[in-house]
Amino acid sequence: MFVGMDHVGVAVKSLDEAVKLYCDVLGFKLGSIHTVTERKVKVAFLSSGGETGVELLEPLDRGSTIARFLETRGEGIHHFAIKVKNIEAVLDDLRKKGVTLIDEKPQAGAGGARIAFVHPKSTKGVLLELCERP
Amino acid sequence: MFVGMDHVGVAVKSLDEAVKLYCDVLGFKLGSIHTVTERKVKVAFLSSGGETGVELLEPLDRGSTIARFLETRGEGIHHFAIKVKNIEAVLDDLRKKGVTLIDEKPQAGAGGARIAFVHPKSTKGVLLELCERP
Repeated sequence: MFVGMDHVGVAVKSLDEAVKLYCDVLGFKLGSIHTVTERKVKVAFLSSGGETGVELLEPLDRGSTIARFLETRGEGIHHFAIKVKNIEAVLDDLRKKGVTLIDEKPQAGAGGARIAFVHPKSTKGVLLELCERP
Repeated sequence: MFVGMDHVGVAVKSLDEAVKLYCDVLGFKLGSIHTVTERKVKVAFLSSGGETGVELLEPLDRGSTIARFLETRGEGIHHFAIKVKNIEAVLDDLRKKGVTLIDEKPQAGAGGARIAFVHPKSTKGVLLELCERP
């Protein structure tokens, strides 16, 4: 059901500052920048040189889940995302196995992806994203 | 300098329990299990179906950095690791750019890897591992 890891999401206060640090200093390559109004975030996709990227996330307003994460945990790793081919089938399978889902149905993600989050209480504390790319 | 993402590390209290959950319920595939006495951890490498895996980490004793992480943050994502080809060259480059390193020299990692950690204060709160595979 899983076909690789799509990205690791990192919550940051300032996308501009984080992109400069990650690309000019650390050595990642900037891919694309998107605003996802449905999720109240601005995101930058960075390449690590392989198939799994880094997604930097800046909240667009204080009601964003990323804003709440920054308030309680500070900047840092927020989630990781697994690539799937049929997100509905994966959600059905997990639901049948008693896994708690945050999103019962796929939601709109950045770059046209269809995504859903699994609750950390079913994953040993990990915010796990399922991600189907167009 | 970066040639992809090697793995995401997840701190867990019980490796046996976490492996069962991640493999039997969530859908990851068990690769190998190692004890890394230098780092006081027992680790399980899981495949996500692509080039980036998940590394579950259980502390071997209370002096392990993973034990301290579990005490303060609880179970969850601990770090992510970027694959590099020449870890000394990457460490030199980062040092010259003023990046704070936890490990000034490569250390022994699981499965014969040579690894070094970058300090979260230089990465927007991310514990970043550099990993050179044999």
